[in-house]
Amino acid sequence: MFPNKTTFQLNRKSKQALYLQLSNTFIELIKSRKLLPETKLPSSRALSENLNVHRKTVVACYEELLLQGWVESIPKKGTFVNANLPELNVQNFTIENRHKKTNNTGFNFYHNEELVRKSPEKKEGFMYINDGISDARLTPAEDIARIYRRICGRKHIYKEMSYGSLFGNEKLRKTLANYLNKTRGLSVSYENILITRGSQMGIYLSSKLLLKKDDLVVIGETNYASADTTFLQSEANLVRVAVDENGLNTKEIEEICKKKAIKAVYVTSHHHHPTTVTLSAERRIHLLNLAKKYSFAIIEDDYDYDFNYNHSPILPLASHDANGNVIYIGSVCKTVAPVFRIGYLISSKEFVNEAANQRRFIDRQGDALLELTFEEFIKNGDLDRHIKKVMKIYKTRRDLFCKLLEEKFKDVFFFEIPKGGMAVWLTLHKKYSWKTISQIAYKHQLEIGEWQRYDIANSKHNAIRIGFATYNEEEIYELIKRLSKTMNEVKLLKKSL
Amino acid sequence: MFPNKTTFQLNRKSKQALYLQLSNTFIELIKSRKLLPETKLPSSRALSENLNVHRKTVVACYEELLLQGWVESIPKKGTFVNANLPELNVQNFTIENRHKKTNNTGFNFYHNEELVRKSPEKKEGFMYINDGISDARLTPAEDIARIYRRICGRKHIYKEMSYGSLFGNEKLRKTLANYLNKTRGLSVSYENILITRGSQMGIYLSSKLLLKKDDLVVIGETNYASADTTFLQSEANLVRVAVDENGLNTKEIEEICKKKAIKAVYVTSHHHHPTTVTLSAERRIHLLNLAKKYSFAIIEDDYDYDFNYNHSPILPLASHDANGNVIYIGSVCKTVAPVFRIGYLISSKEFVNEAANQRRFIDRQGDALLELTFEEFIKNGDLDRHIKKVMKIYKTRRDLFCKLLEEKFKDVFFFEIPKGGMAVWLTLHKKYSWKTISQIAYKHQLEIGEWQRYDIANSKHNAIRIGFATYNEEEIYELIKRLSKTMNEVKLLKKSL
Repeated sequence: MFPNKTTFQLNRKSKQALYLQLSNTFIELIKSRKLLPETKLPSSRALSENLNVHRKTVVACYEELLLQGWVESIPKKGTFVNANLPELNVQNFTIENRHKKTNNTGFNFYHNEELVRKSPEKKEGFMYINDGISDARLTPAEDIARIYRRICGRKHIYKEMSYGSLFGNEKLRKTLANYLNKTRGLSVSYENILITRGSQMGIYLSSKLLLKKDDLVVIGETNYASADTTFLQSEANLVRVAVDENGLNTKEIEEICKKKAIKAVYVTSHHHHPTTVTLSAERRIHLLNLAKKYSFAIIEDDYDYDFNYNHSPILPLASHDANGNVIYIGSVCKTVAPVFRIGYLISSKEFVNEAANQRRFIDRQGDALLELTFEEFIKNGDLDRHIKKVMKIYKTRRDLFCKLLEEKFKDVFFFEIPKGGMAVWLTLHKKYSWKTISQIAYKHQLEIGEWQRYDIANSKHNAIRIGFATYNEEEIYELIKRLSKTMNEVKLLKKSL
Repeated sequence: MFPNKTTFQLNRKSKQALYLQLSNTFIELIKSRKLLPETKLPSSRALSENLNVHRKTVVACYEELLLQGWVESIPKKGTFVNANLPELNVQNFTIENRHKKTNNTGFNFYHNEELVRKSPEKKEGFMYINDGISDARLTPAEDIARIYRRICGRKHIYKEMSYGSLFGNEKLRKTLANYLNKTRGLSVSYENILITRGSQMGIYLSSKLLLKKDDLVVIGETNYASADTTFLQSEANLVRVAVDENGLNTKEIEEICKKKAIKAVYVTSHHHHPTTVTLSAERRIHLLNLAKKYSFAIIEDDYDYDFNYNHSPILPLASHDANGNVIYIGSVCKTVAPVFRIGYLISSKEFVNEAANQRRFIDRQGDALLELTFEEFIKNGDLDRHIKKVMKIYKTRRDLFCKLLEEKFKDVFFFEIPKGGMAVWLTLHKKYSWKTISQIAYKHQLEIGEWQRYDIANSKHNAIRIGFATYNEEEIYELIKRLSKTMNEVKLLKKSL
């Protein structure tokens, strides 16, 4: 039986053409088997009269259905629901039920528990401890947007708008080569540079190219957790070496090399993540020599090169790398703002080519307009001026934060004032635990975050990393206040036990 | 012996502080063993007099070297090059030699030949055949840049500038859910949407989550080559089924399912890539039923949904997916411009969550500012207006291109006028080969491109895909002219054989 008139709810105010509303209704009816295969549709004249629409609308609708294969036209007989249409296997197929599918997955996929990170839901009034990120309020967003818009208005800018280089915009690569050669003692050409979306993409690409199942990668006993997870995705084996006040213990690395072939060492040489120490000159040279002797790659993640408070930054390992062992990774995400996804991977031309080929299959290419924007931002000296400006602010914040920590928590927290970076490595007196602190802090609207992940290798250091750069003076006082309340309660609790 | 004065070339006009120039020179001397370990450095007073710099400069330099570990200070004796510094193993370490490293790689990495694609170097005066991309000259770049700048000037925009959602901006996800529900018959909420950098990232993430070594993925005998390569990176086995005028042969898929478990079917249902045919309604339902019965995923890459010339677009498989089998992938790259890296992956909440976790390790997050820009662009109706505008232009180009092909090459090329998309699937008379044509075309400054890749599965179809949308009227005439010259020569060559 053909459905009655009320089934066709046509909305003449809708932006969708009437014939499409009509054909979509037919499709729903056919799919839901309210119109069975071989059912004859009314003639266009009959239907148009019945629904009070123009006959052309119905004709267009039938043509649409025909084109899509929902109906067939049999000469001299009329239009019929396609006899060969299989039934769509759905229980109670209704619009309402379709909404439920959002929770169903009709297929199996590989779940990777390692990838899961809990980030707390942001709650009004809460303060969140982070492990060292910049203050977004200081971002020169309007300056950058102004450059962006100017670039978009250029006459031949359309040439940058289609499918472009896998390596990133060539102008930015050249400016960056020049900038890094000058500021970081590198000696690279633009061909050594792949523009990435940030350091994480650099680590990911390196991991994909260097590591396969059971390959060895050396990391610190404490290490940047995202790097660990990235390497694990290549099913590599992580080999941990000690980290002390001079950074990674390179003697341990040498011992490992004597026994087994390693593919790579991951190092945050400038300020070790998370402990903030700097790899000493002696170990830098030792590591480079080992890399040469044993032909492994050094993945140097120089995520906070620009952040030094007491002295000039130490030139990266890459600046001493005459044998092509270093893959140098950095970004503007820390110095400008994470929202600007511009980073770089620097290595031999050969490796950079392979990384670009790999990158094609991840996200095809970068954002040439944003890349050109940063090309200007760097070349004009805006980046340097911005760094100078924020460094002054962050230094003040570091000084205040450390002074208050020292004043209030001398008996429970131990730390060195970090010479650079945006975080303090805070060791807790061994009679307390971060777990308890975290629970009590929560009552005082202070979210400590993932304290567990600093102890991922069971190194028993009882320390976490606390960023200071995101908070202004007032916020630092407030944070310390909440931490004081928390620690007072923790101490009382301890006594009462 | 301590190096003489001329070794220290200090530039007082340089932006780099003198003490840093000095310390960097020392580091170079120490690394190159021109200053050996245990060498005593001159007193700060002696050096400052010798070099004619302020004594404070030398003191700052020595402090710097001390901090970095290049020298050590022995009380009452003086400053010495660190006795424990190992020698950096480099032959003839000089600045000049460092430049050579750009061609050396000091470590091994996995080379993946499949990833390599040759793209021709662009030459002045040449025309390049593409496989269907939009005309960048039509990009509304200034409109988009204006929105972008306005957004960057908003009062609380800094909240979008730090580390943010792995899923993409929530506002865009909501607007997109609404837009796609209305225009494509989906019924999804924002939680079903992951904002990607484009379709390729959607395919990549799906492949990572669905496929491991030896898993089966079904694709067309002709297929979008980048999807093939992406699946191969997961070490999956590609199973090819026939593609005819109704798209993928779903009966063949059913036969495969009866024998083996498949993980996914990749389909460009709207216009099959490369042959441009549309998957028929019958096969759509059949495929959905198979997916339900055999619990596999349908990766529906709807890369050119908006491109229809004769009729309204056909609703995607995802609009009929009541069982959660479809992963729906699309982007604005084709409709607006590839430079704007905004795409989406739509599936069950559960799958989208996993994809977001995976995405964190690839590039952390998207560009929230650009995402907000497109949120406005879509919500304001700008996107729809833009599509309407360019569709009219592309239709004219298609008509002209096909008319000329038909007029000039009736005896050598066979094709159907494509109902949508931006390309024609051009089958060559079997007595000719694309290889010869490609070689001769090159003489006429026409680059045919990778004709080989359309025959990747040895399907012997002797056809390639030629995009028409990038060329304006004048360029279409020019292209046809060059192709005519080419074919005339090809025919002569054939006769003379």
